[in-house]
Amino acid sequence: MQIALALYPGFTVLDIIGPLQVLADVPGHDIVFVAGDAGRVTDHTGRCQLVASATFAEVTAPDVVVVPGELFAERDDRLVRWLRQVHPTTTWTTSVSTGSIYLAAAGILDGVDATTHWTRTEELERLGARYTEQRVVERGKVITAAGVSSGIDMALTLLDRMYGPAAAQTVQLAIEYDPSRPSMPVHPRRPGRDRRARDGRTRADAVRPRASASGDLVDRSDVLAH
Amino acid sequence: MQIALALYPGFTVLDIIGPLQVLADVPGHDIVFVAGDAGRVTDHTGRCQLVASATFAEVTAPDVVVVPGELFAERDDRLVRWLRQVHPTTTWTTSVSTGSIYLAAAGILDGVDATTHWTRTEELERLGARYTEQRVVERGKVITAAGVSSGIDMALTLLDRMYGPAAAQTVQLAIEYDPSRPSMPVHPRRPGRDRRARDGRTRADAVRPRASASGDLVDRSDVLAH
Repeated sequence: MQIALALYPGFTVLDIIGPLQVLADVPGHDIVFVAGDAGRVTDHTGRCQLVASATFAEVTAPDVVVVPGELFAERDDRLVRWLRQVHPTTTWTTSVSTGSIYLAAAGILDGVDATTHWTRTEELERLGARYTEQRVVERGKVITAAGVSSGIDMALTLLDRMYGPAAAQTVQLAIEYDPSRPSMPVHPRRPGRDRRARDGRTRADAVRPRASASGDLVDRSDVLAH
Repeated sequence: MQIALALYPGFTVLDIIGPLQVLADVPGHDIVFVAGDAGRVTDHTGRCQLVASATFAEVTAPDVVVVPGELFAERDDRLVRWLRQVHPTTTWTTSVSTGSIYLAAAGILDGVDATTHWTRTEELERLGARYTEQRVVERGKVITAAGVSSGIDMALTLLDRMYGPAAAQTVQLAIEYDPSRPSMPVHPRRPGRDRRARDGRTRADAVRPRASASGDLVDRSDVLAH
């Protein structure tokens, strides 16, 4: 099971390290960082480098592809071309944050529901995708995640689909992915939150934890996928 | 504001990239990856390398130190010695996951409340700390986080303490750290969960989301710190 983690200059490092940490300790997973050129690739902060051990030309039939997002980096056309080449034979093609804009640029999201970082939804739609406001969006073999940290959720969803919930739960426990009562501040440009505000809900409503008041346990797929 | 992110062979990469992503885009933060030797340092999966741009000897007065954990790697005594040297003059000394075991080995946690990955609590206590089951534990200038992904929470807590809640909320929104209804599977060795099970609560109780049934909004420090 070859899992190709794509890199390009200006990528956002947590986008790709979240999935790496979820996927890398599973037996049989062959993880490879792949980029236009092998060697060090610098992230959007300019302070962190990851090492690509293979070029796009050397990875011709990955089973899984993960594409991270960026912060207004110049588009790497070599990654777009590689996605067009390898997507037809992948088992799963995935993205985190604005990585979905790469998928869209490669024609993979034409008319397909997908998500991205909340700042770039219009760009995603201009490239043919249907923006869907969920933390993780699954459509066939294509899984897209919202911004940055949601790559962890995407990869747990992927493990669930590949091996069932026990595998995903084991990794979730190993990495202690159990933030309690996270609440998200409201931002005028954040869709959805903004919509709720327009509907007359208060700021306190909007940042209230989303767990149901009844405390009912949701089923596993819902926990991982949304 | 120099923020030193410590590396050593066998470190767990999400432990350090979570804090990096939270801290690196803040203006005025000088981020430096530091290790016993400059150059590439390989993580516990063997598949990921980060690049240390400075040696411990070259970073003598960091304002903030972050120490990541590992998965049963041999202890790097150079990191222990460096922590003894720099801790007296740091503004904040922090750890993620079993990184607290490095802090304890350096004598920083003698009789101090601290947390670590749930698999290594006894080792932390043998080294003099008082294990405290919280996602983030703050005691003076020392902040320790539980396993792996909780480094994101630790760094958001740190931003809150350094600049106030607006800074922390801005970054939280930027990285979309908003997992909804995460629930943690029960594990026999996980303290706390285990304790609840012994008290006669059901498995469904134990994995129920922790948000209060009333849906009351908790204050910001609670959201970030626990």
